[in-house]
Amino acid sequence: MDAETRATPDDHQALRLWLRLLACTNLIEAPLRQRLREQFEGSLPRFDLMAQLERHPDGLRMGELSQRLMVTGGNVTGLVDQLVAEGLVTRAATSRDRRALVVKLTARGKESFEAMAGEHERWIVEMLGGLPAAERERLHELLGGLKRALTAA
Amino acid sequence: MDAETRATPDDHQALRLWLRLLACTNLIEAPLRQRLREQFEGSLPRFDLMAQLERHPDGLRMGELSQRLMVTGGNVTGLVDQLVAEGLVTRAATSRDRRALVVKLTARGKESFEAMAGEHERWIVEMLGGLPAAERERLHELLGGLKRALTAA
Repeated sequence: MDAETRATPDDHQALRLWLRLLACTNLIEAPLRQRLREQFEGSLPRFDLMAQLERHPDGLRMGELSQRLMVTGGNVTGLVDQLVAEGLVTRAATSRDRRALVVKLTARGKESFEAMAGEHERWIVEMLGGLPAAERERLHELLGGLKRALTAA
Repeated sequence: MDAETRATPDDHQALRLWLRLLACTNLIEAPLRQRLREQFEGSLPRFDLMAQLERHPDGLRMGELSQRLMVTGGNVTGLVDQLVAEGLVTRAATSRDRRALVVKLTARGKESFEAMAGEHERWIVEMLGGLPAAERERLHELLGGLKRALTAA
């Protein structure tokens, strides 16, 4: 019972491909969300937000942060408020532009993110481990082609 | 700027594969959600719910319906209330078990769903059309292997 349940043999091949892609994404995303919640009192949008900050040590403006988040469902302002309250990020005006609030990870935020990221990577490696490495590599390549086709369109 | 922005060369190959899979799903899902909203005043959870009912002409109980929905973010009771108000579904007790409410598409609901489903398929065919058919076929096969590995784990 997943997204593919919707597919019928007379559907176009592109539709069957999409429903399978969605089914695979959901099969990975659902347990990931649950584990993040259980083990870190975190959530996927929160993890995603901290991941973006970790890649930008100089911080990101609120607007940039919203744009970079791919996991939907997270209210960025609310998430940032919560992380500020927990001492994991700071949000401050820059000297150049007093109106633009820049969000940065604190040292504790960086530490907390790294622990989550390590576990996250272990879960993914474990979940995808059932597929032989050569097939994973081929799948990665083909999805690269799909991505190029999607962004070119 | 997408889920893959998070990937670094020293990440495990499984993690890079997952981030690319997520990026592709988002690249298809985001415009789909937007088009459904714009053209049908619908939403992806609503479409998904009606798709499940369309496959079950005898109706589904509320509990079964919740289990079958893969697109998260939809409150099933709220969605059903709304569809009942619009005359697109009915929700009624069965003669066998007065406590179990069964949800069914009305004739108008079926018609409305079919119009959405046709457009939905055309959008998918258009979006994935940039990838040659042979690559789509190979991707479909490889994702089938991934799905089997994920459900076996």
